[in-house]
Amino acid sequence: MIEKLDEILEENFHEMVSVRRYLHQHPELSFKEVETPKYIANYHRNLGSDVKEFVGGRGVVATLKGKLPGPTVALRADFDALPIQEENDLPYKSLVPGVMHACGHDGHTAQLLLLAKALHAIKDKLAGTVVFIHQHAEEYAPGGAIDMIKDGCLEGVDVIFGTHLWATEPLGKVQYNTGALMAAADRFEIVVKGKGGHGAQPHYTKDAILIGSQIVQSLQHIVSRRVDPLDSVVISFGAFEAKNAFNVIADTAKLEGTVRTFDEGVQNNVINYMKEVIDGIAQSYGATAQFNYYKGYPALINHHDEGELVKEVSLNTPSIKEVEYAKPQMGGEDFSYYLQHVKGAFFFTGAMAPDTVDPYPHHHPKFNFDEKAMLHAAKLLGRLTIKAFDEYKRG
Amino acid sequence: MIEKLDEILEENFHEMVSVRRYLHQHPELSFKEVETPKYIANYHRNLGSDVKEFVGGRGVVATLKGKLPGPTVALRADFDALPIQEENDLPYKSLVPGVMHACGHDGHTAQLLLLAKALHAIKDKLAGTVVFIHQHAEEYAPGGAIDMIKDGCLEGVDVIFGTHLWATEPLGKVQYNTGALMAAADRFEIVVKGKGGHGAQPHYTKDAILIGSQIVQSLQHIVSRRVDPLDSVVISFGAFEAKNAFNVIADTAKLEGTVRTFDEGVQNNVINYMKEVIDGIAQSYGATAQFNYYKGYPALINHHDEGELVKEVSLNTPSIKEVEYAKPQMGGEDFSYYLQHVKGAFFFTGAMAPDTVDPYPHHHPKFNFDEKAMLHAAKLLGRLTIKAFDEYKRG
Amino acid sequence: MIEKLDEILEENFHEMVSVRRYLHQHPELSFKEVETPKYIANYHRNLGSDVKEFVGGRGVVATLKGKLPGPTVALRADFDALPIQEENDLPYKSLVPGVMHACGHDGHTAQLLLLAKALHAIKDKLAGTVVFIHQHAEEYAPGGAIDMIKDGCLEGVDVIFGTHLWATEPLGKVQYNTGALMAAADRFEIVVKGKGGHGAQPHYTKDAILIGSQIVQSLQHIVSRRVDPLDSVVISFGAFEAKNAFNVIADTAKLEGTVRTFDEGVQNNVINYMKEVIDGIAQSYGATAQFNYYKGYPALINHHDEGELVKEVSLNTPSIKEVEYAKPQMGGEDFSYYLQHVKGAFFFTGAMAPDTVDPYPHHHPKFNFDEKAMLHAAKLLGRLTIKAFDEYKRG
Amino acid sequence: MIEKLDEILEENFHEMVSVRRYLHQHPELSFKEVETPKYIANYHRNLGSDVKEFVGGRGVVATLKGKLPGPTVALRADFDALPIQEENDLPYKSLVPGVMHACGHDGHTAQLLLLAKALHAIKDKLAGTVVFIHQHAEEYAPGGAIDMIKDGCLEGVDVIFGTHLWATEPLGKVQYNTGALMAAADRFEIVVKGKGGHGAQPHYTKDAILIGSQIVQSLQHIVSRRVDPLDSVVISFGAFEAKNAFNVIADTAKLEGTVRTFDEGVQNNVINYMKEVIDGIAQSYGATAQFNYYKGYPALINHHDEGELVKEVSLNTPSIKEVEYAKPQMGGEDFSYYLQHVKGAFFFTGAMAPDTVDPYPHHHPKFNFDEKAMLHAAKLLGRLTIKAFDEYKRG
Repeated sequence: MIEKLDEILEENFHEMVSVRRYLHQHPELSFKEVETPKYIANYHRNLGSDVKEFVGGRGVVATLKGKLPGPTVALRADFDALPIQEENDLPYKSLVPGVMHACGHDGHTAQLLLLAKALHAIKDKLAGTVVFIHQHAEEYAPGGAIDMIKDGCLEGVDVIFGTHLWATEPLGKVQYNTGALMAAADRFEIVVKGKGGHGAQPHYTKDAILIGSQIVQSLQHIVSRRVDPLDSVVISFGAFEAKNAFNVIADTAKLEGTVRTFDEGVQNNVINYMKEVIDGIAQSYGATAQFNYYKGYPALINHHDEGELVKEVSLNTPSIKEVEYAKPQMGGEDFSYYLQHVKGAFFFTGAMAPDTVDPYPHHHPKFNFDEKAMLHAAKLLGRLTIKAFDEYKRG
Repeated sequence: MIEKLDEILEENFHEMVSVRRYLHQHPELSFKEVETPKYIANYHRNLGSDVKEFVGGRGVVATLKGKLPGPTVALRADFDALPIQEENDLPYKSLVPGVMHACGHDGHTAQLLLLAKALHAIKDKLAGTVVFIHQHAEEYAPGGAIDMIKDGCLEGVDVIFGTHLWATEPLGKVQYNTGALMAAADRFEIVVKGKGGHGAQPHYTKDAILIGSQIVQSLQHIVSRRVDPLDSVVISFGAFEAKNAFNVIADTAKLEGTVRTFDEGVQNNVINYMKEVIDGIAQSYGATAQFNYYKGYPALINHHDEGELVKEVSLNTPSIKEVEYAKPQMGGEDFSYYLQHVKGAFFFTGAMAPDTVDPYPHHHPKFNFDEKAMLHAAKLLGRLTIKAFDEYKRG
Repeated sequence: MIEKLDEILEENFHEMVSVRRYLHQHPELSFKEVETPKYIANYHRNLGSDVKEFVGGRGVVATLKGKLPGPTVALRADFDALPIQEENDLPYKSLVPGVMHACGHDGHTAQLLLLAKALHAIKDKLAGTVVFIHQHAEEYAPGGAIDMIKDGCLEGVDVIFGTHLWATEPLGKVQYNTGALMAAADRFEIVVKGKGGHGAQPHYTKDAILIGSQIVQSLQHIVSRRVDPLDSVVISFGAFEAKNAFNVIADTAKLEGTVRTFDEGVQNNVINYMKEVIDGIAQSYGATAQFNYYKGYPALINHHDEGELVKEVSLNTPSIKEVEYAKPQMGGEDFSYYLQHVKGAFFFTGAMAPDTVDPYPHHHPKFNFDEKAMLHAAKLLGRLTIKAFDEYKRG
Repeated sequence: MIEKLDEILEENFHEMVSVRRYLHQHPELSFKEVETPKYIANYHRNLGSDVKEFVGGRGVVATLKGKLPGPTVALRADFDALPIQEENDLPYKSLVPGVMHACGHDGHTAQLLLLAKALHAIKDKLAGTVVFIHQHAEEYAPGGAIDMIKDGCLEGVDVIFGTHLWATEPLGKVQYNTGALMAAADRFEIVVKGKGGHGAQPHYTKDAILIGSQIVQSLQHIVSRRVDPLDSVVISFGAFEAKNAFNVIADTAKLEGTVRTFDEGVQNNVINYMKEVIDGIAQSYGATAQFNYYKGYPALINHHDEGELVKEVSLNTPSIKEVEYAKPQMGGEDFSYYLQHVKGAFFFTGAMAPDTVDPYPHHHPKFNFDEKAMLHAAKLLGRLTIKAFDEYKRG
């Protein structure tokens, strides 16, 4: 059955490329997707799937029931683009000024659509149900996943898989892991409220720059002293703003930064410790500070056995030449929400063309990927589906 | 003779007010004075003084030789205005948009011109020479004094006096002292050159905000540990600028501030210590920092005996009701340069109208002063001149 | 064959306990072991093994050649005791005042000796060679391993295994892993050389307490900013000593602490960064600081496949009820040196008696362990040996 | 009359030296003086003064009424010695092991006794009363002054004078001033209560060394930012103690230091700010810190007119060659208490022998002074007394 699936996918590779290039030419920004979901819904409807549109806002969910009973496997692809002006000189270059598929979501969509087509072709042999989750707005917090889940996209789902084409890893490589894969990426603001005054009379002031500086210094001690050395935490400042004349002591300093964690308990501890430090330091100067913390996507934590399944399937997929245990990454991905509700795993499919030396990174105006990677991804997801039908059969 | 001088000044008070108001209506910015020095030169020329124009650029020096031989006493008044839009509703309000005599230099000029007129009237009895130094550009570093001195305005001068009308001290009060009266007010910039990067990957960066913060913290230790506790030093930051996206570690942080000292040795030590701290901290992070230090006016240090003379004269001036030893102030004044070359003293003449509760400070758009203070100032400077003729007679 | 081995070990469990208790009564300190290695050598000699004494100083190496050819598997047990006065009330309590087997090395030795006896019994079926490495001085840096290796104890060895009885994990549990298991544990000293003086005259001094304090603060930033957030590093201070009269500024401050890392590259970076920070801060105060860094045992990094082999063998050992992937520990163990030369793995064998609620930790005067754990350990090491004979056959 | 006094003092200089040397041989520690006050009381009694013993504990107060009515002038000399083993090789070396007059109080006493003798000789011409305050325990807080005052030693006193022989200033010099002469010298202790633990597991601890270090850093900002730059304040640490094994995080850190101020308002602000900083920093780590502050002697603030009187008298005393305005010193002196109750002034009488290059400082085992300075001091105090009889006559 698996060989058959591979065969069909290969036969339809040309269409996969066409779909991808069409989408590439017509990118839509997060939470502003209109034509893309319509296109996706039509495609699935034409295959004969059961299709729901506007799931959680702009998402599309297509369901393919195999002829035989079995578990329900969800596959997710995101379809939003980025506010970037494409700088590639390509026949299928973006037609929308200032908007570009610079992260490969066009590929994610195309590979999932063609995988659906291939699975339909072997429908009679499928012992389970496949749910195709086409998600809007992955690039922009709070993301589309959370609303699609609320809207029921995971109902009845036993396990979920997803992959990201990764243009800085070579074609033919898979990176999997069995735990934390991507960090929770949060934002925070601190506004130190001191008391301004003349630079020559510090004793009448509460120097917001001095207080802010000490907060910057002391918050680092949370990372080095107050969390388990085996847990990874980053607290970084992006902005420290206090602009007065050179001889005027600052009334206010505004600081902004990011926190990265891989564990919700750690994340909450860090927030509490930050509050403690900020308040304590401000108080030590008789001042106050406002602290706002905005949680981004949670950490993406792969389920252990499903991560292992990705490994196993990858090792057995002929076109995959290298399977590597992925170190966690500090970036964010709202696939994490699905994994809070059902078992599953997310992995990276290498998409750097052979002989590339210094690939443009994701989100770069010249970003692109080797389209053969889509075929790899579709094969991997297809095999995972069939394998999962077997593994998740309910007693 | 002193009573005569007082009498003449009082008789001419009406003209003193007129002159002041005329100047108030026609303010000119520092280093852009054209009509004001011309006006001053004409006034002195009409009195019969020997007048030099364009001294050190835009200054005016008038010399009145008494009939009898004796020492040479210089009296200095500054005549530049500020880039402030006057908000007073006065018949003699500034006629120049955005320019205003908001520091009382119009008064300084008027009182000195009328004092010259009075001294001319008693010229036959004067045993010495008076040099009237009308200085441009006191408000804007590097100031006019330094160039006027280079151009010879202090040649032959034995002693110099100057006063500032002070609108936040009551009319009838004199503040003198016998040492450091006003601080050296310097400016500095620090540019921390780190290495920017992604907020989640601090190990690839050299975090300019972190480094800048530590510099802010550590520079304070110069004040508290490295200068004599009996010396007064301030290091204040006015600006800390590093503005990036919340998840981007800063490449560069720009800091700006001021240093105040009362002693040149201390000032130079502070500069050296700052350099040492900034370099040491930057180096401790493998980064570098650029440090630019701009000296402003030096500290104004009254000569002891001349300060005492101001006290003595003030105590003996009938209209002066209160004589107070002034604590040093942290502001700057380029009268300090004259005192580096000849003996002398600077003092404050109270100019707050009776019953004023909360006077507008100097440099405020609603600044004004009680014009009777000009009479006090002229009397004080006149008495100092006559007293000095006696005290500074050469053996 | 494996069942036979288990059977023999069980039959000889009584002797294993006797040996352990004898050793427990006669503990010897690290680098001072005399009778213990003699006892071990005799035991192996009686079994008929080839025995080398005084290997690397005080170590004993016994070699058992199976009848059939095959790979060489080393098993290591350490045999030194600790300078602790035993507080247990036991019939076999230590007879040496102030010295105690408080870490279970008596058990390690006993289980390895009885395993040797059992392997001799099935010698005819063994397709390979077993090298029993009895190591002195594990508790005291630089440890015995490094010298035993220099003295050739690993010559011809294909793979090595070792285990630690772990009294705070339940009997029947094995903790294995496939990478970093124990940290490199280093020691450092910093001596800040300032300039002392009177507490009232800081400007004549270079305040060693102030400088030391800033070093303490800033070194933490290495952990939080300069190493990869995914790497685990700890820098902790144990001592800050500067004791003068309350009104005397310190000439010198002595700081001491520990660094923990899991990777030699990271470790070396940390040392370099520490030097940079210490020098930079000292220099920022015009002072100097001496920095001495003493590397302890390197991190113990299990080889991946051998870690997996431990897992597999553990899962197949009947008396083992739980097999857990071990999180790295921050403690040190000089088994790490062996793993720098040959493949192998180290693991923990649970040794807490059932129904124990709050076990005394290792190195405690009341430390003890469930002796049945020795039987588990011997079985595990025996099975690993036989398994390894099979796995490491050379082409 | 003044010439007569000088003459008598000179005639009795030999006795003055004898008295001083006798006292030097028989030093007694603060609050343990027994023979010294007895000796002093006898001397005054023999002169015919009215004598009170055990004033405020161990002080002696002798009163000499001049024949004519007039104000009451107090003269104070302290008489305690120090716990120092004398290292001078002198015929009149201390006979008491480990106790030494190493601060010149033997001289203070001798000069005051002989001045009493001289004043008795001219008693008929004296228009006022002299109170000789011989104070115990100046060297050891809380000092003797406070209790002698409570016991009435200042009753009826109009003005008080005192001097300190100063062995590091040349013979023939007087240092006076008209304001703050010596600082308030206080002691403080901080005990940081964190939570100890293993050096490899900072997250289970609250690192007292880290917290203490930050307190050291931040307290300096009180000096540089929170007090008027024109006020002199010092906060110095003498001790930072946290001694654990190198791999054990500190539970507790004990810090000790001194604060110097010249103004009680500033002093109290500093205490409050310190509390604020210590609490804020401890709290920022979830820890606590105990703060104990022990006020020492208050700042010695000379009264202005009495300071000027010292200057005037000094300038008119033939043996005095140099009169200098003293910069404040950071040391303490409980003469300050007298000045809180009555007008008066304290000054320094130079006592360094001519041609001395590098004099031993006060409190040194080889301390000594030029005995001729006692004659200077007695003359100055005598002249001040007679001058004060004139100046303080009540209307």
